[in-house]
Amino acid sequence: MRALRFDGTAPTVCDVAEPEACDESVLVRVALAGICNTDLEIVRGYMGFQGTLGHEFVGRVEQGPADLRGQRVVGEINFSCQQCPICAQGLQRHCPSRSVMGILEADGAFAELVRVPGANLHPVPDGVPDELAVFTEPLAAAFEILQQVHIEPGRECVVLGDGKLGLLAAQVLHGAGAKVLAVGKHAEKLAILAKRDIETVLLDDWRGELASLIVEATGTVEGFQRAVEATSPRGTLVLKSTVSESARMNLAPLVIDEITVVGSRCGPFPPPLRALETGAIDVRSLITDRFPLSRAPEALDRAHHPTALKVLLDPLL
Amino acid sequence: MRALRFDGTAPTVCDVAEPEACDESVLVRVALAGICNTDLEIVRGYMGFQGTLGHEFVGRVEQGPADLRGQRVVGEINFSCQQCPICAQGLQRHCPSRSVMGILEADGAFAELVRVPGANLHPVPDGVPDELAVFTEPLAAAFEILQQVHIEPGRECVVLGDGKLGLLAAQVLHGAGAKVLAVGKHAEKLAILAKRDIETVLLDDWRGELASLIVEATGTVEGFQRAVEATSPRGTLVLKSTVSESARMNLAPLVIDEITVVGSRCGPFPPPLRALETGAIDVRSLITDRFPLSRAPEALDRAHHPTALKVLLDPLL
Repeated sequence: MRALRFDGTAPTVCDVAEPEACDESVLVRVALAGICNTDLEIVRGYMGFQGTLGHEFVGRVEQGPADLRGQRVVGEINFSCQQCPICAQGLQRHCPSRSVMGILEADGAFAELVRVPGANLHPVPDGVPDELAVFTEPLAAAFEILQQVHIEPGRECVVLGDGKLGLLAAQVLHGAGAKVLAVGKHAEKLAILAKRDIETVLLDDWRGELASLIVEATGTVEGFQRAVEATSPRGTLVLKSTVSESARMNLAPLVIDEITVVGSRCGPFPPPLRALETGAIDVRSLITDRFPLSRAPEALDRAHHPTALKVLLDPLL
Repeated sequence: MRALRFDGTAPTVCDVAEPEACDESVLVRVALAGICNTDLEIVRGYMGFQGTLGHEFVGRVEQGPADLRGQRVVGEINFSCQQCPICAQGLQRHCPSRSVMGILEADGAFAELVRVPGANLHPVPDGVPDELAVFTEPLAAAFEILQQVHIEPGRECVVLGDGKLGLLAAQVLHGAGAKVLAVGKHAEKLAILAKRDIETVLLDDWRGELASLIVEATGTVEGFQRAVEATSPRGTLVLKSTVSESARMNLAPLVIDEITVVGSRCGPFPPPLRALETGAIDVRSLITDRFPLSRAPEALDRAHHPTALKVLLDPLL
């Protein structure tokens, strides 16, 4: 089968052996996959990953137990041991011996077939087409903020970054009743939020007013410092960006202003699936490109471009 | 009067004009003052402060309203405007136009007299002698952890650092029912905690087991990285150290492990005053030195020494 492989130097489409289903894992035929900024970071060296890239997908179960076979599914990306004390606490996404699809010791979904533990799969409601269902994983990461931080009605919240995750987080917070100001660099991306009655401002025009909740989703190493400066005393800074670079920083402002920084990664899938079914979140406007899997390296290049948002890979094209 | 002044180059004992009481501020004759690591950081350039150093003190009101005159008092160090929206929220310690005694635009307590807003003063209970009362401010900073983080009974907690703040924080958390492990570099300092049945280990012997609550009180720029490594997934890292240096860091582990970092500074005074009155916290064992104010620069040097804990300054000696 075809797969986008990364060997530490350059991502390449290769012909590889088909994976096989085993006791706990099923085979999913990928219908559509999405490129995430984490994929771009991995290609720059983040996580030191080698293998098949990709962790956002929707597909149909091809091999596995009878109750799953033929189902249209999305899949949670952390493959946990289900046996350790961390898993026993319900923190499977933090299992210390986990592998992570396309990120850590598990082949990913930029392929015709992907192997996923059956326990990680969620059926996709009939009303949600593939091009929306493929957003389940990144939208879950946006909903994770609501799992971690209590949003009082009308809470003033600044979302820094108008990339894919910023646009999803702003919508999720808006939907939860926060008074959101989205700050970004691209008028045409912010317009997606303005259509949903979310206040937006270009970074250059933003006066940096303090807010009690800041979501840092710039995907840059500079974003953290800017977010700290915009967090009000005793405020909360939700840190979403994972970047491969280090940077010089001084954390004294966190202590002086008693800021709480909440690291935030993956979330559970039921909330985003529900939101996609009801249409509460506009993900369709985020799709800027659709490439055949065979042209995946070109798709990665395109995903780097400032005008791109979600770039989809289609193994069937 | 004599005061320890810092002009940005070297701290020096000078003769300066006595401050005057005014509408909202009273004059306190300092009985005893304590050297904090923040004072040492200021002398290294932190905060860019110039003026009279010192923010830990106990003394007697010499000029001010009749109800305060003659009272033995300790004083909160943040002088707020009491008028802005932040003050109105009860966050006076975070007032954006505050001055801070001996730290930011207000002369401090390493002097014979110090001027303090009457609203910042707390009477010292009769049973608490000066050499214990002088710990109210740093002990308040330790109790601030309990204001910010919910400590479930038996919660596993690692305190990194066996300096003054580490020893106070470990005792406060132990008193609140946490299962504390104190990690430090000095057997004789850790022994103060062992006497109170708190588990201790030398840094070199510590295996770095993860805990769900870590208090970083090393006072070093390296402490943060070590604390992150010891925080379990979804755990909380209370950041206490303020250091003047920056350091290269990568915050991706905060996101990956969804760690919450809680910046923690000053706390309210009633809890430490109560603890000093009941003897719940051993502060007396932390006193290693007592210098006359006239020898304050030598006292600062001594406070830098690894064997020192609390170095007191006595203006009456």
